[in-house]
Amino acid sequence: MARTLPQPAREAIEIVTVLQALADPVRLEVLRQLAKESEPRSCSLEEYDVDITAATLSHHWRVLREAGLTTTFVEGRRRWVELRREDIQARFPGLLDAVLA
Amino acid sequence: MARTLPQPAREAIEIVTVLQALADPVRLEVLRQLAKESEPRSCSLEEYDVDITAATLSHHWRVLREAGLTTTFVEGRRRWVELRREDIQARFPGLLDAVLA
Repeated sequence: MARTLPQPAREAIEIVTVLQALADPVRLEVLRQLAKESEPRSCSLEEYDVDITAATLSHHWRVLREAGLTTTFVEGRRRWVELRREDIQARFPGLLDAVLA
Repeated sequence: MARTLPQPAREAIEIVTVLQALADPVRLEVLRQLAKESEPRSCSLEEYDVDITAATLSHHWRVLREAGLTTTFVEGRRRWVELRREDIQARFPGLLDAVLA
C-alpha cells in the first residue's frame, strides 16, 4: 500500500514558494510532462526527457512537493508523483495554465 | 523628455526569468501596487509600503525590468516605473492575474 510523503495542506500553499519552485527550467519541464497525465507517474529519471542525474531529479521532486505543487507516493522502493492540480487551481486560479502552456 | 532603460523585447521575455523575478515577496508587493495604476509610478522608496533600503528597492526594479515585467523611465534624477501588462499578457496569458490577485 502506498504512503504519501509530507506535503503542505492546500491552505498552507504560498505563492512565493510556488513561484520559486516553478522558476527552474527542469522543474517546469517535468511539471509539463506530469500535467499531461491523470494518474501518478513514476519518479524515475528514465521517464523524463531531461539531461540531469537521478540525484538532481530527486532534489527537484522534493522542491516541488514541499512547495505544494506535487504529491509523492512511496511503495517499497518505488515512487510516483502527481500534480496537485485541484489544490493549485483552488489557491491560485489560472496559474498552472499560464505557466505550463 | 524621459528615456527608457534597456529592457527585453516582448518576444524575448522568458517564462523562467519572469518566474524568478516574481518569486520574491517584496517584488510581488511592489508589482501589486503598480498593477493598480494606469500611469507610470515613481520608483522612490517612500511611495511603497515595504521595509527595505532604497538600494534594495533599486535592485528589485532592475530585476523586474531585466525580466521584462516593467519599463523604467528616466528624466534627470527622477525615475518612474510601469508594469508591462500587455506584453506579459501577450506572452503568458493569465499569469499576472493569477499571481497578483
